[in-house]
Amino acid sequence: MGAAVLSADEHEGQAASDSWLPSLMTETPREGFALAVKLSQKGVATTQTDAEVRKELRPEYAADPNSLIAISHVIATHFQTVAAANDYWRE
Amino acid sequence: MGAAVLSADEHEGQAASDSWLPSLMTETPREGFALAVKLSQKGVATTQTDAEVRKELRPEYAADPNSLIAISHVIATHFQTVAAANDYWRE
Amino acid sequence: MGAAVLSADEHEGQAASDSWLPSLMTETPREGFALAVKLSQKGVATTQTDAEVRKELRPEYAADPNSLIAISHVIATHFQTVAAANDYWRE
Amino acid sequence: MGAAVLSADEHEGQAASDSWLPSLMTETPREGFALAVKLSQKGVATTQTDAEVRKELRPEYAADPNSLIAISHVIATHFQTVAAANDYWRE
Amino acid sequence: MGAAVLSADEHEGQAASDSWLPSLMTETPREGFALAVKLSQKGVATTQTDAEVRKELRPEYAADPNSLIAISHVIATHFQTVAAANDYWRE
Amino acid sequence: MGAAVLSADEHEGQAASDSWLPSLMTETPREGFALAVKLSQKGVATTQTDAEVRKELRPEYAADPNSLIAISHVIATHFQTVAAANDYWRE
Repeated sequence: MGAAVLSADEHEGQAASDSWLPSLMTETPREGFALAVKLSQKGVATTQTDAEVRKELRPEYAADPNSLIAISHVIATHFQTVAAANDYWRE
Repeated sequence: MGAAVLSADEHEGQAASDSWLPSLMTETPREGFALAVKLSQKGVATTQTDAEVRKELRPEYAADPNSLIAISHVIATHFQTVAAANDYWRE
Repeated sequence: MGAAVLSADEHEGQAASDSWLPSLMTETPREGFALAVKLSQKGVATTQTDAEVRKELRPEYAADPNSLIAISHVIATHFQTVAAANDYWRE
Repeated sequence: MGAAVLSADEHEGQAASDSWLPSLMTETPREGFALAVKLSQKGVATTQTDAEVRKELRPEYAADPNSLIAISHVIATHFQTVAAANDYWRE
Repeated sequence: MGAAVLSADEHEGQAASDSWLPSLMTETPREGFALAVKLSQKGVATTQTDAEVRKELRPEYAADPNSLIAISHVIATHFQTVAAANDYWRE
Repeated sequence: MGAAVLSADEHEGQAASDSWLPSLMTETPREGFALAVKLSQKGVATTQTDAEVRKELRPEYAADPNSLIAISHVIATHFQTVAAANDYWRE
């Protein structure tokens, strides 16, 4: 099982509440990376809100190296933000 | 219902006033993310000001994984700005 | 009427003076966003200096979602600079 | 032997633990660059979790200059984060 | 006349001296933008060192909106660096 | 002679030592730019470690404006890092 960038839960995508992003603070770099992945997914889900459509697109991008690289770039951009927010988890 | 990156309201797109972007400050990270989405939409609406055209383009990009990923990248870039403006919503 | 990214005024594009960019400081976030749009246009006009050619290209990119998204990304990058220059218009 | 951006170990890709990213701190710039490469790989592995699929895609992107350049861009983005985290390894 | 991103002078492109980039400091934002354009050109000239080839490629990218937008993005990235170096030309 | 982004020396690409990146500090902006070019090349060489393959790809990307622009973007991203590391070579 893995995290599909285009498959954030639809209910969450429509939620007006802050439940999916209560804070940018995380305990560890690893959790910060997971948050960056989540933010990337939300960026997609905000535009394509139909979870069914996102699911159907998955085989296409998951087998396309350039799509995967582009997704990795988005994650990297969000990770910059999360890492800065956490002062890079310096001791 | 969802937010279409290419479908910001036309009236707003042409507004000279500051009504659509009074401040970069938001109460929560979640509102900051929503603002990043809005800024991404405005970047598109500034170039393609015809809301009807933007609406017609929607089926095209909403079903194209690479377009969705690219949109997510723009949102990520604006979210960096909004998060920094809010000092990452640190306590 | 809208701002065409590829259609900055030719005279300006060739101007050696500082008239088109006297400062990065703006009164409001909205004006800062407008400046980011202007900077994006100038980046194009610096390469394609013929305003007539830029005008001819317009129908092409204005109807292409991926071009519009790419333009929005350039604006986002410049907005980072302008927002930082203005210390995010914090009170 | 080389590091394949699309071929991070599957077991690692699914690990919930912090074992693969204990810290952003490295002893040297060279190690920081290696970490940036690893982060880029993880961004891909998070989406395409099947190591076998990633392996199959390799010949495609490894021979495509534009894919290689795009990968280099992702690494550059992560290297910004890692370098900042380490205060640029200044003495 | 305009600045061709792919047509930095060949002699300069091969120069080992610091003559083409003595400093990131500029008097004005406008000069800073011009430096960003120059840096973008150098990035290209470092890879394609043959000025004749760069000149031949010009009609291709100068009439391609997506190429022009991509060039504008590179300039925006360098302008971030130059603007930060000059502390945004604040008074 | 010029620097081929895809042709970093194979021996270097496989080196585990810090010899190719002892520091991000440079004497001048010009040397910093050269380091940014080197980092861009390393990002490619980390993925495509076969110098022979990289050499074969060269004619393809060196004659493709969009590839050249993309390379320039990667260099710009690394130059941001190197420039910040050197505090922009301010006096």
